[in-house]
Amino acid sequence: MSRVYNFSAGPAILPESVLREAAAEMLDYKGCGMSVMEMSHRSKVFEEIITEAEQDIRNLMQIPNNYKVLFMQGGASTQFAMIPMNFMKNKVADYIITGQWAKKAYQEACKFGKANKVASSEDKTFSYIPDCSDLPISPDADYVYICENNTIYGTKYHTLPNTKGKTLIADVSSCFLSEPVDVTKYGMIFGGVQKNVGPAGVAIAIIREDLITGDILEGTPSMLQYKIHADNKSLYNTPPTYGIYICGKVFKWLKAQGGLEKMKEINEKKAALLYDYLDHSKLFKGTVVKEDRSLMNVPFVTGSDELDAKFVKEARAAGFENLKGHRSVGGMRASIYNALPAEGVEALVAFMKKFEEENM
Amino acid sequence: MSRVYNFSAGPAILPESVLREAAAEMLDYKGCGMSVMEMSHRSKVFEEIITEAEQDIRNLMQIPNNYKVLFMQGGASTQFAMIPMNFMKNKVADYIITGQWAKKAYQEACKFGKANKVASSEDKTFSYIPDCSDLPISPDADYVYICENNTIYGTKYHTLPNTKGKTLIADVSSCFLSEPVDVTKYGMIFGGVQKNVGPAGVAIAIIREDLITGDILEGTPSMLQYKIHADNKSLYNTPPTYGIYICGKVFKWLKAQGGLEKMKEINEKKAALLYDYLDHSKLFKGTVVKEDRSLMNVPFVTGSDELDAKFVKEARAAGFENLKGHRSVGGMRASIYNALPAEGVEALVAFMKKFEEENM
Repeated sequence: MSRVYNFSAGPAILPESVLREAAAEMLDYKGCGMSVMEMSHRSKVFEEIITEAEQDIRNLMQIPNNYKVLFMQGGASTQFAMIPMNFMKNKVADYIITGQWAKKAYQEACKFGKANKVASSEDKTFSYIPDCSDLPISPDADYVYICENNTIYGTKYHTLPNTKGKTLIADVSSCFLSEPVDVTKYGMIFGGVQKNVGPAGVAIAIIREDLITGDILEGTPSMLQYKIHADNKSLYNTPPTYGIYICGKVFKWLKAQGGLEKMKEINEKKAALLYDYLDHSKLFKGTVVKEDRSLMNVPFVTGSDELDAKFVKEARAAGFENLKGHRSVGGMRASIYNALPAEGVEALVAFMKKFEEENM
Repeated sequence: MSRVYNFSAGPAILPESVLREAAAEMLDYKGCGMSVMEMSHRSKVFEEIITEAEQDIRNLMQIPNNYKVLFMQGGASTQFAMIPMNFMKNKVADYIITGQWAKKAYQEACKFGKANKVASSEDKTFSYIPDCSDLPISPDADYVYICENNTIYGTKYHTLPNTKGKTLIADVSSCFLSEPVDVTKYGMIFGGVQKNVGPAGVAIAIIREDLITGDILEGTPSMLQYKIHADNKSLYNTPPTYGIYICGKVFKWLKAQGGLEKMKEINEKKAALLYDYLDHSKLFKGTVVKEDRSLMNVPFVTGSDELDAKFVKEARAAGFENLKGHRSVGGMRASIYNALPAEGVEALVAFMKKFEEENM
């Protein structure tokens, strides 16, 4: 068995120790004689798994008691509809468009009320985060929506928008648990887990309790109502049990690494390795405005499509997988999530240097 | 490691060989250097996994070419809303109520149009299937809805309802792939996979193509539109990749067993072992009308709550897990899905005989 350096944008690399544990427990979870896949979601054993998972993410993110933590299905894409259906009391919401996912969330919201684009960076292929210090926030906006880290474009908000007192809702799919977060600044934080937390098929939402009410848009399906999931502690129907179990293991791994302060330190070091090289390379360059760079997703180009393709091909042959950039940006993208070890980035930079020497 | 006999109603037992393979491939799937959990849903490797899974279920169920096979999230509970949102053109649908899940589907449909209860077995705790040979089907019904096997109550339709030409939609969650099915009799067959097919978090829908149109109720979220999932071959957003991979392994296991004809034969033999004993026991008796018995879920009682509790406790100590019945029926329930080996049922019957001798 040989593991590659996996730079996939998502589903993405998981800690090897988590996978080893999962493999060891596959036929018999802690002596209960069955796999976690095979147990009732209402069994005591699974109740312990989900309760511990919730407690661990609460500890990691220091989630205050007046926030619910919900484990759901359907990915961030289902949340794009749930957010307006549950929160658009005035049928008005403001969206900041910093990439494809924010745009999709905006388009979905348009089905349910008046969604406003209050800022956008689409003019420059989403290569920066707009100045959000004084936006034309709608007086009756039910919330202000952002995608905090933009997987495709490699940008991140390093300062949250000034929402002028309105509720902030953030999709954090690609920066989930990558650094400490002040949860109290948000009404809701959510994400699909398949980038930085666990296997595809689990979405986690952290929602301030007062926002979760029965006062929702007519015709909202039961499965799309936060109140139903909250009242049933994420067990209204059968949840994605195995995915939640793996997320729980990742939470424990993060705690063992030293928590989110430590992860931030590690992630900053990892990202600096790559960005510093990009800033000095004569062949490669980053595609994002410096001050808005993501710690998780690093897009870069050579300036030549041919060389880009050659690089991706040779990198793959050398054991660096999934470096091809998204078609809307082109070039390359290295997603360097929590679980990607520093030596992976070091090895990539060494490989890029060698490639640069050979191709200049 | 010692495995128990797992009679859970769902999530439920999986074939041991499938779990062994999954464990062996956990860190490196077929030499690609990563787990299936870690790979992009748009990678060639995963494309092969999902394409093969679809092909295998098509072969197993002999699904005609004019039916789509969709892999989705959200369980059967999300389908309860999707069905009316996508198919209620006339805003009228007929529901046959044979248990809690049919009732939930009916209640959900009431949000979107006029759902009619055209038959029900609620008068006798859903212990039988109503005569459906001549129901008052609504002339403008968009579809007739059934739950074909009722997990909680242990009943199954052995004859499909006469829908008088209307489209039949069936939730088959707890009898999925347990025997051959004539797909052409249905407009849609669907189920959560976590009972008889795979891990919780995947729902499969088999839908006749002409029913999948863009003509849907206003305000239907993108993720709840069959057309979007069909047009994107179940890859509109990140699907529950690992769950689909396990389902695919189960499909291959079923093919290796000899397909659905053979599974039916095996399942009939397994169920007969238990039902024959129940019919002759002086202590235990089945709770379901004989002609409507399920092959998958077998509820039974002693007639004494105290003895029931004693039985469940002693059975558990002897390695028979999850025999406690649903609270709405009481007593015991043995779910004897595809993956439960015949020796599990034989051992259970032997244990019941011993218990009967000791407690009469």
